[in-house]
Amino acid sequence: MISFESDYTTGAHPRILERLAETNLEAVTGYGTDFYCESAREKIRDACGCKEAQVYFLVGGTQTNAVVISSMLRRYEGVVAVSTGHINVHEAGAIEYTGHKVLALPCHLPERNGEVSKVRRLTSSPKDSGKMDADNLKEFLQKFYQDDSRDHMVFPGMVYLSYPTEYGTLYSKKELEAIALVCREYEMPLFLDGARLGYGLMSLESDMTMQDIAKLCDVFYIGGTKVGALCGEAVVFPRGNAPKHFLTAIKQHGAMLAKGRLLGIQFDTLFTENLYLDISRHAIEMAEQLKKILREKGCTFYLESSTNQQFIILEDGQLKKLREHVAVSFWEKADDTHTVVRLVTSWSTRKEDLEQLEEALEICC
Amino acid sequence: MISFESDYTTGAHPRILERLAETNLEAVTGYGTDFYCESAREKIRDACGCKEAQVYFLVGGTQTNAVVISSMLRRYEGVVAVSTGHINVHEAGAIEYTGHKVLALPCHLPERNGEVSKVRRLTSSPKDSGKMDADNLKEFLQKFYQDDSRDHMVFPGMVYLSYPTEYGTLYSKKELEAIALVCREYEMPLFLDGARLGYGLMSLESDMTMQDIAKLCDVFYIGGTKVGALCGEAVVFPRGNAPKHFLTAIKQHGAMLAKGRLLGIQFDTLFTENLYLDISRHAIEMAEQLKKILREKGCTFYLESSTNQQFIILEDGQLKKLREHVAVSFWEKADDTHTVVRLVTSWSTRKEDLEQLEEALEICC
Amino acid sequence: MISFESDYTTGAHPRILERLAETNLEAVTGYGTDFYCESAREKIRDACGCKEAQVYFLVGGTQTNAVVISSMLRRYEGVVAVSTGHINVHEAGAIEYTGHKVLALPCHLPERNGEVSKVRRLTSSPKDSGKMDADNLKEFLQKFYQDDSRDHMVFPGMVYLSYPTEYGTLYSKKELEAIALVCREYEMPLFLDGARLGYGLMSLESDMTMQDIAKLCDVFYIGGTKVGALCGEAVVFPRGNAPKHFLTAIKQHGAMLAKGRLLGIQFDTLFTENLYLDISRHAIEMAEQLKKILREKGCTFYLESSTNQQFIILEDGQLKKLREHVAVSFWEKADDTHTVVRLVTSWSTRKEDLEQLEEALEICC
Amino acid sequence: MISFESDYTTGAHPRILERLAETNLEAVTGYGTDFYCESAREKIRDACGCKEAQVYFLVGGTQTNAVVISSMLRRYEGVVAVSTGHINVHEAGAIEYTGHKVLALPCHLPERNGEVSKVRRLTSSPKDSGKMDADNLKEFLQKFYQDDSRDHMVFPGMVYLSYPTEYGTLYSKKELEAIALVCREYEMPLFLDGARLGYGLMSLESDMTMQDIAKLCDVFYIGGTKVGALCGEAVVFPRGNAPKHFLTAIKQHGAMLAKGRLLGIQFDTLFTENLYLDISRHAIEMAEQLKKILREKGCTFYLESSTNQQFIILEDGQLKKLREHVAVSFWEKADDTHTVVRLVTSWSTRKEDLEQLEEALEICC
Repeated sequence: MISFESDYTTGAHPRILERLAETNLEAVTGYGTDFYCESAREKIRDACGCKEAQVYFLVGGTQTNAVVISSMLRRYEGVVAVSTGHINVHEAGAIEYTGHKVLALPCHLPERNGEVSKVRRLTSSPKDSGKMDADNLKEFLQKFYQDDSRDHMVFPGMVYLSYPTEYGTLYSKKELEAIALVCREYEMPLFLDGARLGYGLMSLESDMTMQDIAKLCDVFYIGGTKVGALCGEAVVFPRGNAPKHFLTAIKQHGAMLAKGRLLGIQFDTLFTENLYLDISRHAIEMAEQLKKILREKGCTFYLESSTNQQFIILEDGQLKKLREHVAVSFWEKADDTHTVVRLVTSWSTRKEDLEQLEEALEICC
Repeated sequence: MISFESDYTTGAHPRILERLAETNLEAVTGYGTDFYCESAREKIRDACGCKEAQVYFLVGGTQTNAVVISSMLRRYEGVVAVSTGHINVHEAGAIEYTGHKVLALPCHLPERNGEVSKVRRLTSSPKDSGKMDADNLKEFLQKFYQDDSRDHMVFPGMVYLSYPTEYGTLYSKKELEAIALVCREYEMPLFLDGARLGYGLMSLESDMTMQDIAKLCDVFYIGGTKVGALCGEAVVFPRGNAPKHFLTAIKQHGAMLAKGRLLGIQFDTLFTENLYLDISRHAIEMAEQLKKILREKGCTFYLESSTNQQFIILEDGQLKKLREHVAVSFWEKADDTHTVVRLVTSWSTRKEDLEQLEEALEICC
Repeated sequence: MISFESDYTTGAHPRILERLAETNLEAVTGYGTDFYCESAREKIRDACGCKEAQVYFLVGGTQTNAVVISSMLRRYEGVVAVSTGHINVHEAGAIEYTGHKVLALPCHLPERNGEVSKVRRLTSSPKDSGKMDADNLKEFLQKFYQDDSRDHMVFPGMVYLSYPTEYGTLYSKKELEAIALVCREYEMPLFLDGARLGYGLMSLESDMTMQDIAKLCDVFYIGGTKVGALCGEAVVFPRGNAPKHFLTAIKQHGAMLAKGRLLGIQFDTLFTENLYLDISRHAIEMAEQLKKILREKGCTFYLESSTNQQFIILEDGQLKKLREHVAVSFWEKADDTHTVVRLVTSWSTRKEDLEQLEEALEICC
Repeated sequence: MISFESDYTTGAHPRILERLAETNLEAVTGYGTDFYCESAREKIRDACGCKEAQVYFLVGGTQTNAVVISSMLRRYEGVVAVSTGHINVHEAGAIEYTGHKVLALPCHLPERNGEVSKVRRLTSSPKDSGKMDADNLKEFLQKFYQDDSRDHMVFPGMVYLSYPTEYGTLYSKKELEAIALVCREYEMPLFLDGARLGYGLMSLESDMTMQDIAKLCDVFYIGGTKVGALCGEAVVFPRGNAPKHFLTAIKQHGAMLAKGRLLGIQFDTLFTENLYLDISRHAIEMAEQLKKILREKGCTFYLESSTNQQFIILEDGQLKKLREHVAVSFWEKADDTHTVVRLVTSWSTRKEDLEQLEEALEICC
């Protein structure tokens, strides 16, 4: 059965497996001090256009968010995120486990005919779903600093956003600049969760490069797990601004690999000859074709996404039939008889997968 | 200058000070093991109609919330509260500091003409402001348990509500029963924050007794600090259902007084000859007269409260003038030129205070 | 029955109760912003000879230790203390609860004939029991910074010691200077737990003043609970060096009193006309007489203490008899048939108490 | 240059890389729900002789310790370990970060002529170095439960030990049974850290099987990272006794891999045709030859280890020369001119490595 369930259903890009095999019996030092990690760091610095960047390799996204956020906040501070942000919903309270509140801002959500959606809806523009709005952020901060009782409240200490968002949508350069400006005004670091960074940058709609991200953010991570690696996320502090003893923070969270080479070799490979962006572009091409197929089959889109995650609304009977042929992801119930479903492409999606999906849709819809 | 700023501006009920003085030089054991604590516990058991209740004395409200909630939740659980709940806004993230998320439900908030209020508004009934709705709670829980990815989410582990709420409003017996029913269905303890419990129970609108509270809740606390004590809150586990080694949890939070007598003597006094409810009733009588005065002066009420906290909207110029004569509490900006202001009565409010307020209002409004 | 069980068996110094009564109905602002708190702060600044000191009032010792330590440490740091330090043994893991390790140094403990004591014994000098040694501290730090794997270890971030120690012993000025010197060399703040500060300063053996303490430490607290107050500890940052937003840290720990006046009035009273040191001196005079009585009755001292806590070893049968007349404190088993017992004087100990103890000892020993 | 620095200097056993490559493009579900994880679990159940065992795959050792310990302890409990235990020294305070104290017991340490070792030494038997003693454990627990003030102390909630220990030494079956007996008497789960479990079980000195471990412990983990995997540890709850919602605890700690297959395939391979124990046995054979060589060269052993870690004492000049040819691990300074050095074999150690080491030693010693 073919799968459009997620971008982590297959293993690693074959070039990564080759490199792991080639280097397998070389004895190197542990904990990320090896040659491959250093080489990968250097290539990432180049790709970001930041010679002084500090780069750390961690294993997964939730872990990375927890380590970065808890290391950058003071104890009385929380992290500002939209209510649909991954850290606020799908990380099992990992941020709160480190003692910090997620200060959730309302965000744009897709309209659904007359139905009450889970959080407050500010506009109906489906392209803005899941995004933070610079004006909302500023208004929140202004109110906080006007509040007489703010000493009894959690101080906003940093801003978290995902690029692409959890809904596959993207910030334009202008939008990200506006948010970064607010962050600087209030002296809050801006943290960008790039679990799917490649798929965002290669979107046809994107007007940003990795260098732009590095310029605008105080810390961000380049997702490996969902973009061709077995596991691994590369945290970048573009201006050498990592918190003191960040390595110990990584260790304290149980996030340090003894065989750091596993991450170093993977990122070294992904950042050799542009592999990371090339395979991301492939996923976007597949996503564009997927959208075309879905549109042709008359599917209702839940929202407009220009990245590798696509969301459609299916009648429950159709969904049941489709699932006999294709693995897709439950997103949420749209109403009593309809479901929002996610289809995802990745570096490993093949033309044949799309063809089979097309056939399956013909049968079901 | 007279003060309607809060219910903690004055010291303690004189009878408490007398008892402290009378017993001052008696040597008793520490940490709440003394005779006065035991006597107070027994009287509270009587007042709650629960012979098997366990009663613990803590010092303040935020501390009590943190100790109770963190002791009753498992590590992967959060506490459900309305978004305006004290633990979600004004306790500096004390719950998250213990590692637990506050799962914030939207709640009723006062309508303000056309203005965007801070959180989502479900109805416009001003009497419901700040209250949790049993149906909302149930819907939230149903959605959670239907969600395929709930293993990646914070489990709802208990329900927190305030009686009266942060807006001075009250749950009816029927409403509290409905919430308790949902809690039992989902096997979640119900925790009632009674920082102002006396003022709630003595409200003319209240249809509950302390026994009702004890019957419906799994744990609640009887607020002392705001109802005549220098400090102190009495936590009640009505069915002897305190978490194992709760004393050690209290100590671990730095919430255990060496001179436990200070709390024991105060609560013993408050629960002798009905003092707690008598002084609460006095505050409510003063609040009813306050409302009458405010109404007569044509003040705009922000919402309808039947307890000791009253909220009105003043034009900023008026507020400035009023504050030359009376201390009141800033609540929030209503719009650019108006402010929501809180006036509070307590056990120590005197008729003369009301008379002086009336005069001051005459000058200002 | 008379009690030498602890220095928190009685209430407050009568002058404190008088002041509480006199000021009871004055309406003042909450959370430590009132006139009395400010006046107390000013008097404490004077007593410490530090005009720029920041002073905060907290409720109890464990709470104070947790708030101070967790606010001053970075997440990857721990606090260095001797293994017998209060934070390492008798605070139910309150420091670890905030996420920080107590890095326990071995310390001097009383010799007991041939018996294996609980922790490693460095010398047999009973006057040094429970004290940190500057050389040990320095050796520990040197080893840490020589260790290649220190990035995988908890960084020593501050030093905690008690004055007097948990064994009633005292640091000389020279000893404290030596420790402070090591702290400065390693850029670690020095925190002194002064739960019984007055009894230490007034000891006949003491060669320090409160000004000396303020000069040598980066933060310390002046214990109220055990020195005449109902509750309360005054935290002093002598050089205006409190962590940013320390008030919010206090609130976050549930350590902020709504009626801050309760603490302000008590400390204002204790620091008026030298009351704090006067009543401490009285306790020391009583302790000296206690020692004389114990010596005359042939009691075996467990160690030499010049402060208000005295430790003797009693045969279990004697202890049982003594307890029919006098409340004393179990310290630990000395061997199968003997017990180490603590007797404590305080500001409220009377000559009559000593006389009755003498009679009781005559019967039992 | 050859390396005896650690057992994580090389990649993975070649069979693992082959399996990763063979299965690479199969689309499977995420988060450990795939076929390979399930197959690995089943094989581990067989190897442990526990059909009802629950098996979870985590990424690294520190992470595993933190997740297991924090999930099994109540908030007021700590974990008992020897002072040299990995969780007490080399995990950057990961356990304390979750809010729990490590209750450190003194343990056997190698004697060094007249020198003061870091922690208290109970015996001089070098074979017992780094081990917990059942009698010591019991004595500690007895004292705790006799202590009147235990409510103010951290409750011992579980026991942690390493097999082999951090010093390469082993518990005999009888010794582990004795510890397990104490644990059951005090109703504390026994947790065995098996980061190097294979090397322990295959030691010539070992008298235990994996089934014995499963029978005696309440939870343990089978180390993959150091025994042939790229990363990964398999946590086993032998009697289906995992804490409720353990998956969510894993997620909350950021310890859940999206591509769970990476762990499943590795453990499935390691537990196919006895690979795990076979490659462990190889490492032990290499270690025995290593010991022979070291002995022949007249090296001083720091202690007696029958597993893959060997500790010798070298004069600093010798060490410097040796390091020009061989990578070895600094353990600690023995005295001003000598160093304790660790040499480690693994599944990937070759005869040629030993031959080269022999030559290098000839030159240096």
